[in-house]
Amino acid sequence: MFGSEYLLIPGPTPVPERITRVMQQPMINHRGPAFHQMYAEIVEGVKKIYQTEKGKVVIYPSSGTGTMEAAIANFVCPSEKVLAVSIGAFGDRLAEIAAAFGADVEKMDFPWGEAADPEKIRERLKMDTKHEIKAILVTHNETSTGVYNDIEKISATRENHPALLIVDGVSSLAALELKMDAWNLDVVLSGSQKAFMLPPGLGLMAFSEKAYEAYQRNTNSRYYWDIGRSLKFQEKGETPSTPPVTIYFGLQEALKMLEEEGLENVIRRHAGYRDLIRGGVQAMGLENVAADACASPVVTTIRVPQGHTPAEIRNRMREDFNMVVSGGQGKLADTTFRIGHLGYMREMDLLSCIAALEMTLKRLGIPVELGAGVKKAQEILLAR
Amino acid sequence: MFGSEYLLIPGPTPVPERITRVMQQPMINHRGPAFHQMYAEIVEGVKKIYQTEKGKVVIYPSSGTGTMEAAIANFVCPSEKVLAVSIGAFGDRLAEIAAAFGADVEKMDFPWGEAADPEKIRERLKMDTKHEIKAILVTHNETSTGVYNDIEKISATRENHPALLIVDGVSSLAALELKMDAWNLDVVLSGSQKAFMLPPGLGLMAFSEKAYEAYQRNTNSRYYWDIGRSLKFQEKGETPSTPPVTIYFGLQEALKMLEEEGLENVIRRHAGYRDLIRGGVQAMGLENVAADACASPVVTTIRVPQGHTPAEIRNRMREDFNMVVSGGQGKLADTTFRIGHLGYMREMDLLSCIAALEMTLKRLGIPVELGAGVKKAQEILLAR
Repeated sequence: MFGSEYLLIPGPTPVPERITRVMQQPMINHRGPAFHQMYAEIVEGVKKIYQTEKGKVVIYPSSGTGTMEAAIANFVCPSEKVLAVSIGAFGDRLAEIAAAFGADVEKMDFPWGEAADPEKIRERLKMDTKHEIKAILVTHNETSTGVYNDIEKISATRENHPALLIVDGVSSLAALELKMDAWNLDVVLSGSQKAFMLPPGLGLMAFSEKAYEAYQRNTNSRYYWDIGRSLKFQEKGETPSTPPVTIYFGLQEALKMLEEEGLENVIRRHAGYRDLIRGGVQAMGLENVAADACASPVVTTIRVPQGHTPAEIRNRMREDFNMVVSGGQGKLADTTFRIGHLGYMREMDLLSCIAALEMTLKRLGIPVELGAGVKKAQEILLAR
Repeated sequence: MFGSEYLLIPGPTPVPERITRVMQQPMINHRGPAFHQMYAEIVEGVKKIYQTEKGKVVIYPSSGTGTMEAAIANFVCPSEKVLAVSIGAFGDRLAEIAAAFGADVEKMDFPWGEAADPEKIRERLKMDTKHEIKAILVTHNETSTGVYNDIEKISATRENHPALLIVDGVSSLAALELKMDAWNLDVVLSGSQKAFMLPPGLGLMAFSEKAYEAYQRNTNSRYYWDIGRSLKFQEKGETPSTPPVTIYFGLQEALKMLEEEGLENVIRRHAGYRDLIRGGVQAMGLENVAADACASPVVTTIRVPQGHTPAEIRNRMREDFNMVVSGGQGKLADTTFRIGHLGYMREMDLLSCIAALEMTLKRLGIPVELGAGVKKAQEILLAR
């Protein structure tokens, strides 16, 4: 297939040329003044994205999963009870990491394809009169099912319960509304390869004063993830171990781009991507896993028509039309595929993806009216 | 509008990342061994694209128009009669350059939107029993009207007439079939920013032994364009004046890419672009200027619906959908616009362009059925 691929997976996302270019700067000393200045600027910029003034930010040379481990290693003690709210594969992962660190994990599972019900969380916390639950673990955007949770409401269910709220915002930060201070969140995780439009390699974590107090009482073995070391180095504009400097160059530029566009517009843009893809997918007769009310702005999980496999659809899309989409995850692995619409996406590429999906269905003998999904997406675009 | 633009003009075309990357090599001495080796390799590679073994190739630091001037300055003497066959703005330009150099230009004009009729050329040459016509000037692909000429047939009309055939292949080389030796062509021009997928900056010219003999008798004042100087420097792997080395890096890579794909496949790919765009445009109710039989594989010229202007359509496409298309040229300037489908194009981007054009018509209040053009293009893609 001639030409480069269209990357429509829920991270890594395409990297804008503007960012690619700045990443080509010559390497600098990560213990020198140029890095000090860049680092300070980046920490301030990232705080704005987290919408926090009171919180602290640390940046790890890691994947998003690394920040999950960092959150547990710093803020959850072995044998402490945590309420792990899961709506999919990434909710399960956070629970697994907590268990691996010896926490007493109580899972609260919701059906895959639905959001967590804040009322159920509220009831559970009300029952916990002795405040045994020390932390609630929850995913903001569940990348496996294409569902997002209402973190503001979930946070409010705590009322006077002192549990920390630890939010996996890896695929949500800067794409969905997330207000760390206003919503009273304690720990929020993210990664560079999502709405920051960067290559993978950086894990981001913000935490509240209350979380920091929990850290000070924390007894876990840790070194790499230790926020105390990070904060100490941060005072002199450095990181404890060698940072991926190239991605820092990119992050500095990404923060400028997000600021120029305006965070609200960025969030609105992602909601627009969702509406376009979901509308197109429905109009061609396919079924979205997520209900409208909780459908993710960054990824759409689609059921594969009976008698077909995700691999058939994905291979055909890539081989015949250059469209790279993701497979299903966890228990949806064999029955769904996913279109990512996150970060540096162009609306017309999403429209192309819908057109390619229609042609793929046709080639696979799945009933579809060519152009129907595209027409719906066009109507959605024109109605703005 | 978020994201980078889609460049769908008939040159410059998008530049593949693979080429962009090699162009970032450190600068080299254009009088040193690394350049000598690259230059020799490039000349051999370009000859393959011209499908010539007997011809010579020179490369100018120039635009395509520069090569037109080079052709006249080297191969047409002042006061010599030339038959300038024109089917559009670029045919006119070649005639104007010949006139500017004092040639006795006889224009043979065909209606804009049609190809040249080889029989008319044959008749004219038959009448020229004294062989006063020293050269025939003809455009291979007329970028203004989106029409291509049958150069093989036109060349054959000469029979025993000794006139040189000078072909403007600026927008055709490596996109349309062109066989310099087999078709007995004397001079063929091209430029880097077309099917070579490079930035503008290089003009290419190939010429036959017979053309070289004409050069030796030629009395024009010239220096920059003098092929004798070029050939002399070529012996040592150099160019007479400073070459744009960066674009040479790119040309070396482009030649590899064209060879890997195979010239026949490249030509077939462009024909596919044409079918897709023309089909989509017709299905949405717009009129293509060129007839099917002579429709250009690299650019489609489309009539603007009555009561509207090319600027309205182009601005809306760029501002609302990131799609950059070209305006009309010459006498079609106020009534047409053009979609380029040349060089590094992805089929799905052409499909996006059709979708964007439909939405543009809708926004301008021009009757159109959303999705109709896209559907047609999808059917054309699927029928392959």
